[in-house]
Amino acid sequence: MAAKQSIEEGIDFIPKFDNNGLIKAIAQDSKTGQVLMVASMNQLALDLTIQTGFATYFSTSRQKLWKKGEESGHFQKVEQILVDCDQDCIILKVTVDAGQCHTGRQSCFYRALKKGSSNKLEFVAEKVYDPKKAYKK
Amino acid sequence: MAAKQSIEEGIDFIPKFDNNGLIKAIAQDSKTGQVLMVASMNQLALDLTIQTGFATYFSTSRQKLWKKGEESGHFQKVEQILVDCDQDCIILKVTVDAGQCHTGRQSCFYRALKKGSSNKLEFVAEKVYDPKKAYKK
Repeated sequence: MAAKQSIEEGIDFIPKFDNNGLIKAIAQDSKTGQVLMVASMNQLALDLTIQTGFATYFSTSRQKLWKKGEESGHFQKVEQILVDCDQDCIILKVTVDAGQCHTGRQSCFYRALKKGSSNKLEFVAEKVYDPKKAYKK
Repeated sequence: MAAKQSIEEGIDFIPKFDNNGLIKAIAQDSKTGQVLMVASMNQLALDLTIQTGFATYFSTSRQKLWKKGEESGHFQKVEQILVDCDQDCIILKVTVDAGQCHTGRQSCFYRALKKGSSNKLEFVAEKVYDPKKAYKK
């Protein structure tokens, strides 16, 4: 109980990594409030993000560190790092240029569940860049 | 590759649950854009959320369905459900009253990493209700 109180009301940053050593990080546009993407970080990715001021994640599919923008050029400059009550999730408030999703949209969340449907989506955002060009190298 | 194309560019909602049958859901205030909390859903929680229009999660600590607000009275009315490119994370755009975090703050993200520090937090939000009263029953 004391531990819970300390985690929830304390000023020590004690990120809680899961059994795979990962924590979820939400990248949110610091100006618009739009949620851009959600990815995982391991301890090293988090350390590098704090040290460099640019978002670095751990790619679970590629099993390697991934500095956001290293291929696309669309970096995320970190303005603020927020942590939630039980410290198992963080938000990066970031400054970005156009296009954060690898599909070409500004945000990865470019589809919404259709009103009245339980299984059909509709697009709510257009592409803002051509991913074929950004990832051509 | 066809599957990836279909998941990323299709209109079928095919949420990708993890090995524990869970998917992360971000609750975001539909008016202010503030991220309120992040929690898990299993298939049933997601179905109930869609059917009822109120956010229902799966509590991993209590291992049971949890309609947000059932104890505190602070329900989340779901205005829109967004899904990300690989469909392993959703955003609920919600309408809420004051106080979504069980600690008494509006958002669970009430602390930020101090500028220039790697391990010290500072509070960035005040309590908006008294959790002792809300959870007294």
